Amino acid sequence: MRMSTLVVTAITIILFILDQREAKAQQNVRKVRIANIEIDSAYIDAYRTALAEHANVAVQVEPGVLALQAVYDKAHPTKVTVLEVYASEQAYQMHVKSPHFLKYKNGTQKMVKSLQLVEVAPIAIEIKPNFEIGPKS
Amino acid sequence: MRMSTLVVTAITIILFILDQREAKAQQNVRKVRIANIEIDSAYIDAYRTALAEHANVAVQVEPGVLALQAVYDKAHPTKVTVLEVYASEQAYQMHVKSPHFLKYKNGTQKMVKSLQLVEVAPIAIEIKPNFEIGPKS
Repeated sequence: MRMSTLVVTAITIILFILDQREAKAQQNVRKVRIANIEIDSAYIDAYRTALAEHANVAVQVEPGVLALQAVYDKAHPTKVTVLEVYASEQAYQMHVKSPHFLKYKNGTQKMVKSLQLVEVAPIAIEIKPNFEIGPKS
Repeated sequence: MRMSTLVVTAITIILFILDQREAKAQQNVRKVRIANIEIDSAYIDAYRTALAEHANVAVQVEPGVLALQAVYDKAHPTKVTVLEVYASEQAYQMHVKSPHFLKYKNGTQKMVKSLQLVEVAPIAIEIKPNFEIGPKS
């Protein structure tokens, strides 16, 4: 075997190993996102019901959907913000193919006027143990 | 006692009872808010450290601070969003008088270019039990 062939082979192997390590590290990186959604005012209640049901099902049945928190602006109830936390990019890709997501997405398409997705990274995620936000809120 | 005096007294008592009930109901209403913060780019790291410490202490020591979740926009790291959940308006008023809040507020004043506070109400708050966002995120 020529020296140059040996070098090329060695580099190829090293790059492959580094790539695998990178891919593995990526799998463990949480995906955190904010969705800013503007709803057609004719569908405020219907949209809230659909989103609440979807978030509940997704967090319950999908191991990789860690948290979905949705709120609306009290002064502008058509403005909705969702803070989404997925275990990884892979978990997110599975989520968007799930039947409950597709049901929500198709069912609310006519209600959504605009959707802006913002990739974010956490500074602090501090939540009390057993935190629950009851119907009284 | 005249009939009119009796009626006025009865109405006063009824209004007082209704008012008490309203006040009691208000005490149990969660206060949920989004803070949109723009940071001076010279202080990105210092601000993140201060906010992370503040959120950690507040959720740990204050019974009425239920959750503080802060993220930054990956594409615009000076843009910070905080989702805040307090047990009640009263809990929030106590929070802003706490020594750790005042330390954070005074310590970061020069770092903050703008602060927009949005009163919101929950549509869905779904969080996995034992949810934790580790340092890997």
